[in-house]
Amino acid sequence: MIDIIIELITAKQYAKLKGILSDIEPIDIAALFDDLPKRYMPLLYRLLPKETAAEVFVELDADTQEMLITGFSDSELKEVLDELYLDDAVDIIEEMPANVVKRIIRHSDPEVRHSINEILNYPKDSAGSIMTIEFIDLKEDMTVQDAFTKIRRTGVDKETIYTCYVTDRNRILKGIVSVKDLLLSAEDCVISDIMEKNPIFVYTLDDKEDVAKALSKYDFLALPVVDNEKRLVGIVTVDDAIDVIQEEATEDIEKMAAMTPSEKPYLKTGVWDTFKQRIPWLLVLMISATFTGKIIAHFEDALGKFVVLTTFIPMLMDTGGNSGSQASVTIIRGLSLEEIHFRDILRILWKEARVALICGVVLACANFVKLMIIDRVTLTIALVVCTTLVGTVFFAKIVGSSLPLFAKKIGFDPAVMASPLITTIVDAMSLMIYFNIASAVLHI
Amino acid sequence: MIDIIIELITAKQYAKLKGILSDIEPIDIAALFDDLPKRYMPLLYRLLPKETAAEVFVELDADTQEMLITGFSDSELKEVLDELYLDDAVDIIEEMPANVVKRIIRHSDPEVRHSINEILNYPKDSAGSIMTIEFIDLKEDMTVQDAFTKIRRTGVDKETIYTCYVTDRNRILKGIVSVKDLLLSAEDCVISDIMEKNPIFVYTLDDKEDVAKALSKYDFLALPVVDNEKRLVGIVTVDDAIDVIQEEATEDIEKMAAMTPSEKPYLKTGVWDTFKQRIPWLLVLMISATFTGKIIAHFEDALGKFVVLTTFIPMLMDTGGNSGSQASVTIIRGLSLEEIHFRDILRILWKEARVALICGVVLACANFVKLMIIDRVTLTIALVVCTTLVGTVFFAKIVGSSLPLFAKKIGFDPAVMASPLITTIVDAMSLMIYFNIASAVLHI
Repeated sequence: MIDIIIELITAKQYAKLKGILSDIEPIDIAALFDDLPKRYMPLLYRLLPKETAAEVFVELDADTQEMLITGFSDSELKEVLDELYLDDAVDIIEEMPANVVKRIIRHSDPEVRHSINEILNYPKDSAGSIMTIEFIDLKEDMTVQDAFTKIRRTGVDKETIYTCYVTDRNRILKGIVSVKDLLLSAEDCVISDIMEKNPIFVYTLDDKEDVAKALSKYDFLALPVVDNEKRLVGIVTVDDAIDVIQEEATEDIEKMAAMTPSEKPYLKTGVWDTFKQRIPWLLVLMISATFTGKIIAHFEDALGKFVVLTTFIPMLMDTGGNSGSQASVTIIRGLSLEEIHFRDILRILWKEARVALICGVVLACANFVKLMIIDRVTLTIALVVCTTLVGTVFFAKIVGSSLPLFAKKIGFDPAVMASPLITTIVDAMSLMIYFNIASAVLHI
Repeated sequence: MIDIIIELITAKQYAKLKGILSDIEPIDIAALFDDLPKRYMPLLYRLLPKETAAEVFVELDADTQEMLITGFSDSELKEVLDELYLDDAVDIIEEMPANVVKRIIRHSDPEVRHSINEILNYPKDSAGSIMTIEFIDLKEDMTVQDAFTKIRRTGVDKETIYTCYVTDRNRILKGIVSVKDLLLSAEDCVISDIMEKNPIFVYTLDDKEDVAKALSKYDFLALPVVDNEKRLVGIVTVDDAIDVIQEEATEDIEKMAAMTPSEKPYLKTGVWDTFKQRIPWLLVLMISATFTGKIIAHFEDALGKFVVLTTFIPMLMDTGGNSGSQASVTIIRGLSLEEIHFRDILRILWKEARVALICGVVLACANFVKLMIIDRVTLTIALVVCTTLVGTVFFAKIVGSSLPLFAKKIGFDPAVMASPLITTIVDAMSLMIYFNIASAVLHI
């Protein structure tokens, strides 16, 4: 595809190129820019129809956007800005260097400039920061016909027209009405009779994750955002909610793997930033693993007498770690999807205890056979290792499942309590169990 | 809330209760059922307005649905079934025991019965299995006015009316047109002039994950599903896509934590099923940890001479494991979000190599200080441990980042290649590095 486009550009067959571009979705055109040599970009961009151009622009990566903006004449810049939805404009501005931001702000209408500044002022993870202020607002005394007239007059610039918001003269949110309801009602119906009167809404400062969850829970296409006086200030649309859901899942996964969450996709993150994301937990966990070393040092004499005990340390530690992270990761994800709450703790512990016992016994049996047939250790050693296995799996599952619940309860992020931290705790615990059983049984 | 409802039920204040219920979203009413004693459920359900009742029914858990269905009279059952969207009906049927399914099928219209059977026949993870067959279809020669007439006539039963699908007489998909386009066009415009002619579509057998990704990528509200002859058979709506996205993230997280993915929420899964989810990888990883034991056994003599070396094994193994899973989890998530592809492998390795070196050196320095000041080991031992650390972190990151890429390349699931498996490989590698350096430096 990209070859054809470069060929057409070099052959100056612009009309044919325009024809091809008109059949491609904006986001796919944006993907083409990734593979296009820089020198062709401005030309290809100028060949796009005006409406498509803005949609493509939003999807380009920040470097390409900056390059294009720098090359734009003032009137070209203004044209692009006029076509952008406000929330997209804000997203772009957040990525641009100061001089480009100044130029963008200078070429925006005073009203748009004011709104951009307002959205930029909302905290990073708030509903306000992801909302759009372009929505259809209706009044309670309008008829269905009035509503359609308003939609036809103003709808072209709105991100969604399918949910309309009914406000009073003080901009207080009174209700919502869908275009479906409007279409299925008689033309002379009054809005206040068909609107839903107790709409679900969120506040500007609510966490964007909660907003996304609400949108997904209620299967809405958009959710109204109000300020502290319940005045309607914007809406969050479902496409933005999907992005938030994906981001949050990525953040949880990163935290579970002992990283601080990243802001950008992997390939756009520099070496230094990736390093900073990864080093804190590596350091913490390295230092905390010292305790495990101390436990081994404490039992140095026993290990000297039965060196064979050393060879099972990695297997016991790994199995404990894996058992623990299975439980913790399940609970963390359940908490994050709100399928699990702290009040379920007894049910969870009771379930985990039973699962742990079955897992532990099965693993111990399998291991016993292997120890006797392959490793050919003494019966006593085999019993020590297998008993330890049952104990380790049991405690690993109990710690792994309860720690995230307590973290959540006291207001910590459960995901941070996940695998690696639990591994460290479980490592220490499994060694304690191991050496204590060994000491007791082997009389050392 | 639930207390008020129980109070009103026992006081038989049904009118007041109806009033309260009418102000609550269906999914929140469904949540009330979770806390309601079983004996009140049928009564509360019968108090719901007909349209709300179906929406609430869909959101109830399978046990409650079964109980209600069993208690329904035949005409009540038919009423509920008539109000359900087909894809919801199929979801419910999939959860019910055979006798309930038979009763449901017996009380459905022949046409509906046929469609239910058809959807039930699509493979579990296909687009066909999550699509709905209720959509608005238009013809190319209709005018905008005709379209609105059709929407008004048939729209009430459709899951979404906002995207309409244009088909020819053979039901082949020709284009799509949004209600927004219809509203913003003159009444006598012909559909073929305003429709989008090359709509994005998916096939019935496409993976539902790809369908969800396409919906999220293009910011669509629904995506048409066609059969092999490009005949339109259904649509997938954005709310179902969000569910798929959440499920897929959960599955990836479960695989990364060495579990086989679950079908149901944690608290609904039995002990036995949870056990079956967790035991396979625990067994595999326990057995594979034997190699690590073998390596230690091989260097038993060296460890006998320098027992202090044993105390650093857990720290080295854990740090290696954590470094490896940081890299692997990042790459797996990137692959799953399609931000990373196999062709990026050289960029990724080059980046990981640099990140690994910086991380390794920083960790080694911190550890060196700790070894000399707190542990007070000899300079030689400290150097052995710190050099091993750099080597381990380096190889862990390289293995952690490349393994998922190769897995994807040869068609394996990258998530399965994650943390635990990589931990086992990295454990063995770090011990090899450790003992080889120790042998060389300490002349053992």
